[in-house]
Amino acid sequence: MIRIGIAGYGNLGRGVECAVNKAPDMELVGVFTRRNPADLKIADPNAKVFSFDDAKNMTDKIDVMIICGGSATDLPKMTPEMAKYFNVIDSFDTHANIPQHFANVDKSAKESKHTAIISIGWDPGMFSLNRLYANSILPNGKDYTFWGKGVSQGHSDAIRRVEGVLDGKQYTIPIESALERVRSGENPELTAREKHLRECFVVPKEGADLAAIEKAIKTMPNYFADYDTTVHFITEEELKRDHSGIPHGGFVIRTGKTGWNDECSHTIEYSLKLDSNPQFTSSILTAYARAAYKLSQKGDFGCKTIFDIAPADISPMSAEEIRAHML
Amino acid sequence: MIRIGIAGYGNLGRGVECAVNKAPDMELVGVFTRRNPADLKIADPNAKVFSFDDAKNMTDKIDVMIICGGSATDLPKMTPEMAKYFNVIDSFDTHANIPQHFANVDKSAKESKHTAIISIGWDPGMFSLNRLYANSILPNGKDYTFWGKGVSQGHSDAIRRVEGVLDGKQYTIPIESALERVRSGENPELTAREKHLRECFVVPKEGADLAAIEKAIKTMPNYFADYDTTVHFITEEELKRDHSGIPHGGFVIRTGKTGWNDECSHTIEYSLKLDSNPQFTSSILTAYARAAYKLSQKGDFGCKTIFDIAPADISPMSAEEIRAHML
Repeated sequence: MIRIGIAGYGNLGRGVECAVNKAPDMELVGVFTRRNPADLKIADPNAKVFSFDDAKNMTDKIDVMIICGGSATDLPKMTPEMAKYFNVIDSFDTHANIPQHFANVDKSAKESKHTAIISIGWDPGMFSLNRLYANSILPNGKDYTFWGKGVSQGHSDAIRRVEGVLDGKQYTIPIESALERVRSGENPELTAREKHLRECFVVPKEGADLAAIEKAIKTMPNYFADYDTTVHFITEEELKRDHSGIPHGGFVIRTGKTGWNDECSHTIEYSLKLDSNPQFTSSILTAYARAAYKLSQKGDFGCKTIFDIAPADISPMSAEEIRAHML
Repeated sequence: MIRIGIAGYGNLGRGVECAVNKAPDMELVGVFTRRNPADLKIADPNAKVFSFDDAKNMTDKIDVMIICGGSATDLPKMTPEMAKYFNVIDSFDTHANIPQHFANVDKSAKESKHTAIISIGWDPGMFSLNRLYANSILPNGKDYTFWGKGVSQGHSDAIRRVEGVLDGKQYTIPIESALERVRSGENPELTAREKHLRECFVVPKEGADLAAIEKAIKTMPNYFADYDTTVHFITEEELKRDHSGIPHGGFVIRTGKTGWNDECSHTIEYSLKLDSNPQFTSSILTAYARAAYKLSQKGDFGCKTIFDIAPADISPMSAEEIRAHML
């Protein structure tokens, strides 16, 4: 059994707890928290809650620490620090800072002879993987990524900062006709507005100027101005009843040509439809925690990304079973 | 530059020739044939044609031999034999015999210190890969594979063996309503008849009994009896004009549940729409030939399948470039 620790117990940590529970070859040792451990109730009756500070005294009890923190401030510190003591994995998703994060984690993991895997999830993650596979197979082609239908946390936060808004949620919606143009092999050049719609559900404060809220949202630079945006005003009860989920998903499509004279067209499409964004991300993290363990057993230390992991290493099956049942 | 040899020059070999020509880091040294080399014209003016027997004298001129033979009789002999002299790759697709083929090729490649990759293509191949990824991420779920719309070589051959048939072609067509039921997360149990239609275009011999042909096809065990099959009689000219392509494709879908009480549903879907089945298979073979070269450079010898290859190894980009541009 691979002994798992979870560092951080938000949506992601709770999802990892569920996924480890379903894995045939893993057991959850404990959840590590910055809060008072006595105050934190977890779902798994067989696991315990520890303080972050306890972790470094438990290096012989945990095979992989799954770090469930935020990319903005948590992971840049937590992952290199935890990699001194454990094999680690995180879902770092600030694209621009990946090279720096990789370098920091790599140094820490190599010095302490651990395996670290960063930026695991679906984007970055499974979407990145599908872009790489499709690009390698069809070098003469064009990539398209569509997101949604799903809740964008960043855009929902932006709505909530608007004057007069009590609460709100934003859905990113891919435009079906654009998807169809891409799938047809037409290779269109698409603007932001042509690819996605933005739909907002807004709870106004009492007496707020609705027209002003709608205008402030629709003209907000970067977030909404470049999109066709719709704004619906609803009550707090409606928001809670109809929009409390965190669904997401999307499409990675590559169209390309082969043949001596580019006479053949091909379309590769990968898509996800997810009831819960953090639950799915957690499931990917848990599968790749298995790879972190296997690589550490082989002595393959340092920082890795999803591109460096052979698919067999995320499966609980043996090489013979995989060849017999999956090929 | 990775120096490539092609063994066999049918549809697959010609496709590899095109793909190697498009690869930024490969050059085609030559095509090896069982025919008289002087009689074989190839497309690439910079490559030469050699006899199969010349191969073993060219071990210092070729980095990877891409073996483009048939799975029934060619590959079981050719791949282990060629692996004595070269890093090799093939598209062996007789599922039941993969363990034996793997063992034979592994022995040969390990003894001679070469890297061999077998069963590369889209099914087995990219479809297998997507089944493995999706199963590892969503262990609590169900797999569905649909093929088509595309030409099935085996079913077309079966039609042509029917009394009174001059020529013919069979298309396998996935049933859209079944796809929709799967995508909805309903987890249906589907019979062969519920998943695919079979559409046949048949050129009868002069004076043949059309009703007898149609009945013979529709009632043929294993091939057609378990499906809703339609038979169209057409002329030789129509067959040539409208049905000379070799399109194919398909869908790999996994639906699964996560959450402590299985409260969240997720759908992962991978699909291909291919103008030319052999051209696309060739493109995958060529990308994985790059991996065979990279693994041999690292001293990672023996037989591998698509599950053993880290995605980064099929890309012409460096690890830094991949992290910067693909993650």
